Amino acid sequence: MRISELAESTGVALATVKYYLREGLLMPGEATSRTRAEYDDRHVQRVRLIRALIESGGLGIAGVRSVVSALEDPPGSPHELLGVAHRAVPPPVPADPVDAEVRDLLAHLGWDRCHPSPLAGSLTRAIADARAAGIPLALESLRRYAEGAQELARVDVDVATAAPSPEEALHAVVVGTVMLEPVIATLRRLAQEVVSAEALGVISPE
Amino acid sequence: MRISELAESTGVALATVKYYLREGLLMPGEATSRTRAEYDDRHVQRVRLIRALIESGGLGIAGVRSVVSALEDPPGSPHELLGVAHRAVPPPVPADPVDAEVRDLLAHLGWDRCHPSPLAGSLTRAIADARAAGIPLALESLRRYAEGAQELARVDVDVATAAPSPEEALHAVVVGTVMLEPVIATLRRLAQEVVSAEALGVISPE
Repeated sequence: MRISELAESTGVALATVKYYLREGLLMPGEATSRTRAEYDDRHVQRVRLIRALIESGGLGIAGVRSVVSALEDPPGSPHELLGVAHRAVPPPVPADPVDAEVRDLLAHLGWDRCHPSPLAGSLTRAIADARAAGIPLALESLRRYAEGAQELARVDVDVATAAPSPEEALHAVVVGTVMLEPVIATLRRLAQEVVSAEALGVISPE
Repeated sequence: MRISELAESTGVALATVKYYLREGLLMPGEATSRTRAEYDDRHVQRVRLIRALIESGGLGIAGVRSVVSALEDPPGSPHELLGVAHRAVPPPVPADPVDAEVRDLLAHLGWDRCHPSPLAGSLTRAIADARAAGIPLALESLRRYAEGAQELARVDVDVATAAPSPEEALHAVVVGTVMLEPVIATLRRLAQEVVSAEALGVISPE
């Protein structure tokens, strides 16, 4: 298809598709003449991916470029895959130096069995930010949030493990990490309404 | 304290504090002369809250204004509290019309026992966006994510219920909904590393 058809079939403005090309986020089409190139399904998928990462995932151009490079250059072993994925996706908040509370929490959870993750610093910062905003966030609550998060991570890993190829596993992890955050955030708020209505006796427990 | 001390003790630039005042996000100090006003601890807390909502929570000025108004005008009954909280906080993604899959999912979970929530439309949109980005998101995975999200919501509701006053419960829900998203997102990624290393046999299960 031509670039105008690529724009039309993805619902993305032609100028925006050209911008993705210039920024190197979208791979070039196959040149058929000096001024024309042919695009295919891979381009349609890539345009949809870029758009979703920006609009729903909230990534900037640099974040999208990082995700796209990881997809184009997947690591050799599945063990490295998650590290590549996590480095590709910008952390939810920048990292602070890891503090003793987070070190103890990770040890308590048995999460210190992996090599030290740069995400431990982001956790330190996210907890400090929540407390600065007046959320006390007791250690017991943190542990319970971590257990809930582990349930979510089991689904993530099961989905990635079921992928038919390393490329698709990488796609599931890199893209799923970002794109499922709004799904999970929305589910959490919907669940708050039900759990709260039960706690207040407005509806009966199932 | 003077406005310059308020800026200093919160680490926020004086011009930014004045901007918060002009935008009505920060309540005025008590005027002590035609050109001076006195600020107290409530102002320190409010400046920290605004900063955290913008920087870590990712809210815009309109979102912050909405959260702050909800805190200043709490609802009469605890049952209304969560509705006010959820209307105050911008949804993770805008709402689409609710589709049959989301309606069935909510019914399966027993989450349709509450009045229809505008968040059901946001869930429809977030799922469509994830699929457009190439994440298949089978119904079974959605159900498991919903169960994990319900665990998180139980912690949220327990913390809000334990708050000593309706104002503090509202603060816990409104501010916690936004400010704990980065905490949960970071915990999920840390958990992915452990669960994945266990699944690949790189570390032994505990």
